[in-house]
Amino acid sequence: MKVVRVGLIGLGTVGAGVFSVLRRNQEEIKRRTGCRIEITTVSRRDLDKARSMVDGAVRVVANPHELIDSPDVDVVVELIGGCDAAREFVLRAIAAGKHVVTANKALLATHGTEIFAAAEARGVMVAFEAAVAGGIPIVKALREGLTANRIQWIAGIINGTTNYILSEMRNRGVSFDAALRQAQALGYAETDPTFDVNGTDAAHKATLMSAIAFGIPVQFDRAYVEGISGLANLDLRYAEQLGYRIKLLGIVRRREGEGVELRVHPTLLPARQLIANVEGAMNAIVVNGDAVGNTLYYGKGAGSEATASAVIADLVDVARLSTSNPEHRVPYLAFQPGAVRDVQVLPIAEAITSYYLRLRVADETGVLARVTAILAQSGIGVGALLQLEAKDVGGDESAQTDLVILTHQARERAMNVALTQLQALPVVLAPIVRIRKEELD
Amino acid sequence: MKVVRVGLIGLGTVGAGVFSVLRRNQEEIKRRTGCRIEITTVSRRDLDKARSMVDGAVRVVANPHELIDSPDVDVVVELIGGCDAAREFVLRAIAAGKHVVTANKALLATHGTEIFAAAEARGVMVAFEAAVAGGIPIVKALREGLTANRIQWIAGIINGTTNYILSEMRNRGVSFDAALRQAQALGYAETDPTFDVNGTDAAHKATLMSAIAFGIPVQFDRAYVEGISGLANLDLRYAEQLGYRIKLLGIVRRREGEGVELRVHPTLLPARQLIANVEGAMNAIVVNGDAVGNTLYYGKGAGSEATASAVIADLVDVARLSTSNPEHRVPYLAFQPGAVRDVQVLPIAEAITSYYLRLRVADETGVLARVTAILAQSGIGVGALLQLEAKDVGGDESAQTDLVILTHQARERAMNVALTQLQALPVVLAPIVRIRKEELD
Repeated sequence: MKVVRVGLIGLGTVGAGVFSVLRRNQEEIKRRTGCRIEITTVSRRDLDKARSMVDGAVRVVANPHELIDSPDVDVVVELIGGCDAAREFVLRAIAAGKHVVTANKALLATHGTEIFAAAEARGVMVAFEAAVAGGIPIVKALREGLTANRIQWIAGIINGTTNYILSEMRNRGVSFDAALRQAQALGYAETDPTFDVNGTDAAHKATLMSAIAFGIPVQFDRAYVEGISGLANLDLRYAEQLGYRIKLLGIVRRREGEGVELRVHPTLLPARQLIANVEGAMNAIVVNGDAVGNTLYYGKGAGSEATASAVIADLVDVARLSTSNPEHRVPYLAFQPGAVRDVQVLPIAEAITSYYLRLRVADETGVLARVTAILAQSGIGVGALLQLEAKDVGGDESAQTDLVILTHQARERAMNVALTQLQALPVVLAPIVRIRKEELD
Repeated sequence: MKVVRVGLIGLGTVGAGVFSVLRRNQEEIKRRTGCRIEITTVSRRDLDKARSMVDGAVRVVANPHELIDSPDVDVVVELIGGCDAAREFVLRAIAAGKHVVTANKALLATHGTEIFAAAEARGVMVAFEAAVAGGIPIVKALREGLTANRIQWIAGIINGTTNYILSEMRNRGVSFDAALRQAQALGYAETDPTFDVNGTDAAHKATLMSAIAFGIPVQFDRAYVEGISGLANLDLRYAEQLGYRIKLLGIVRRREGEGVELRVHPTLLPARQLIANVEGAMNAIVVNGDAVGNTLYYGKGAGSEATASAVIADLVDVARLSTSNPEHRVPYLAFQPGAVRDVQVLPIAEAITSYYLRLRVADETGVLARVTAILAQSGIGVGALLQLEAKDVGGDESAQTDLVILTHQARERAMNVALTQLQALPVVLAPIVRIRKEELD
């Protein structure tokens, strides 16, 4: 029986998951693949801790270089995260002719071009199903399952921490800060939650999906990224009244003749959409293909065994294809390296979307007329409008009112001009809230 | 550039979709795969009609044998449906050393064992992504994406016609017959909708998924199949009151040490579950794997271009791997042919599930006590109970009442015994309605 010998760099949550799933399901995986996947070596700085986690048959080393260079390692699994050290190890593994499996979205979104070129030159595989949406096999769906389609757009809840926080804010009316503390207490958010909360993590994944969907280079530095820390419960409630829900979405969209949109931000979605009903720390991704229409993929985006599920699926692909002609492998980013097109990621000012606006205004005659006149001058159509008593204001409530507007689609540049004018109106009493909105039809 | 030459048997809705998608996206597919997929030959009895649908470069023949034997056909795509002729053509193509792509669930669910054995012996591929849930890449997800998992169960809305009918019955309160007529008018149901409505089509797909998930032979003849034509609007409403929705589900479940459940029937689902909110003619499948937990896959289960999307994805897999070592291919039914285990499909009497029961009873003192005593004797726990005025009864309404019971899990054999006793009670005035219920947690 063919044996694939694996070296694991990093033995944290995911590494431990890979171990336990491989041990538990070795027999099932053998029945499927006809081969045995065997972890021969792990590297972790704390040798004692590592030894307590693995059985005696596995070699434990402190130095990843030793693992990479070991003759009994055919595939290197990189699970340490972060960019600098991970980049060095992955490039070194490739140079040594080892196949690589990684769950590292930050690494691939920033150094993907370099890494995939090196792997191409060396003829090795770099697989990364676990880097996007954890256990959901979305990379395989995009690269293979939907390969007949011209993909038009993808919109995904691809960060579980923020979806958990938003679910709590909506369902229990707690503030962002309280929901974040609870997420930390339950292990859904890290001690330093910055990259989750500010959208960076979602943007890494969206960047990878943009490359796979459209055949363009990974361009993380061009992504527009906006997190959820500024969201107020009030806007979640108003959105709900209008039949919408607010989710942090990663969105990539093909804009024929112009470029590609790549953006992460809080987004209003119609509550009737399946993805709007994804609660808690779960992930879900909607893909629109020109032939298949909308398809959706849902599951755990993180966690020890869910992520391990994706890592092991990659190991099986490597086991199956590593000895084959490279022509028989699916290209790293779905498109043949020679066919990647240098399409630009559009600046956010060129994005086209619809908007939710909330204006805290003085309750005076003529306010509505002035506001709608400015929108009309900028060519921005109004789809729905709510005028509500501003209940959260202390003191003289009657003097203030909330004007909530859902606009039709507009170019963000035009919206920015209108917002500047609106904000300058003396009757507008507070910074205007602007949240983008997508129908996903 | 490598060219894969395709022969298409059958040029109906799906065949036309394959044509138009391949034509429209030829360039995109080439950028992804580095090869060209070219339809060289089509067969259809009505030659004139076929010629009007394809351009001059494609050869049109009336006899599929001519297509199969043609030296300019590397892959045969079977799209005629049905079993007898399709079986003959597929086996002949295999014998001729041609790879096969098919959307034919009936064929594979009934003759899969013979067909895959023949293909294995001849070393050719038989791909069938389009046979389960149309455009949703669920076969790939099960065979490859979730390969690390021991799959515990799958539950799917895998027939769009019946889901459309149930959605209409619920949302608009129309009867089954009216909803069916509307489905036919809109093209969601065929002129003869028997195999959709009675669950046969869903059972074909569930049978294929059971083999892929558990590594067992296809055993369609052992499937339990129950359709939706007996469903009353009243029960949809009562279910709703209890927080449930009724869907026609295909369910396969591993029952450690006993066998496998393979059943299709109307099923109560918690309304909070994502799959309970899948409306209209759409499909969705929930897969529970021991590592990944629940994942869900949603999309169009039928239609010209959605099904074509899956057929072409298979063609790309064939293009990529047809010249490779067979060891590099994923096994037809996910498990190595030698590792398939002859696990039996359990008779429905051995299924374990929970139940919705509706008893139309005389409004007398002591009825409730008698009913619950019988359930208790059979070891069946009651989870929820509603007693309602039977509003749909003409005449003396006050004399009748509906007793709606949600039970805990029980073996169907025990439930059958209890139902026989309940039905024999003089106070039970009409046939008891029994609908199975799943929590899908």
